[in-house]
Amino acid sequence: MIGDEERLLFANDAFYAAFASADIRAMQDLWADKHPVSVIHPGADIVVGRAEVLASWKAILRDDTGFDIEHRNPVARLLGETGIVLCRERVGTHHLIATNVFVRIVDNWRIAHHQSGPAPLQAKPKQEEQRPVH
Amino acid sequence: MIGDEERLLFANDAFYAAFASADIRAMQDLWADKHPVSVIHPGADIVVGRAEVLASWKAILRDDTGFDIEHRNPVARLLGETGIVLCRERVGTHHLIATNVFVRIVDNWRIAHHQSGPAPLQAKPKQEEQRPVH
Repeated sequence: MIGDEERLLFANDAFYAAFASADIRAMQDLWADKHPVSVIHPGADIVVGRAEVLASWKAILRDDTGFDIEHRNPVARLLGETGIVLCRERVGTHHLIATNVFVRIVDNWRIAHHQSGPAPLQAKPKQEEQRPVH
Repeated sequence: MIGDEERLLFANDAFYAAFASADIRAMQDLWADKHPVSVIHPGADIVVGRAEVLASWKAILRDDTGFDIEHRNPVARLLGETGIVLCRERVGTHHLIATNVFVRIVDNWRIAHHQSGPAPLQAKPKQEEQRPVH
């Protein structure tokens, strides 16, 4: 039987599949419609509200037949009716790292928040560079 | 009577107060101890697990009597037993933007996840720079 964590990771896969295929309709269906939603795209400001969040996706996906994105090493964190998936993203040559927050709707998970920002390089940084800004 | 959202913003304030005063004991008390916890510090990799998350804070706060951080414009998003606070951070001269996920423990909120990454400059970018990486 498929478990909560598997379903959560499946929803996360579906989010990146919609992204990669620039499928705005699938993206709409994946975002929660009965919970507050928000997004922080890389280097961009906070976007709050379903209409505003979907408009941000339309702007990103508007003239693409597809999007060169893949995600790696997803980690699922279950917090009851909410679930978080943390993963790495590669968008073209950019390496990013993301927090995706999902809410459970019966047996499905729908996304309520996404933040993505720069990831460290795969190579180990030097000792004096290991300490992050915070 | 104080509401859920006010309590959630209060917990977010407490998180930044612990950070600013480099109070590792307060930080320990603020992080959830019965839920999975994780953190993504700016430009750093995913850290999972309470011991690992607290060790990351100890490394950041270890030789500081205080930390030059302030947060601004917090926005609370209630998802039932989970709450998200989105806010801007200023750390020294760095401008960051954060997702803080909290879990409700009776009447309190404890932090379960934090991601912080670069914020856009306050000035409006030029037209061709407005589109984020994604």
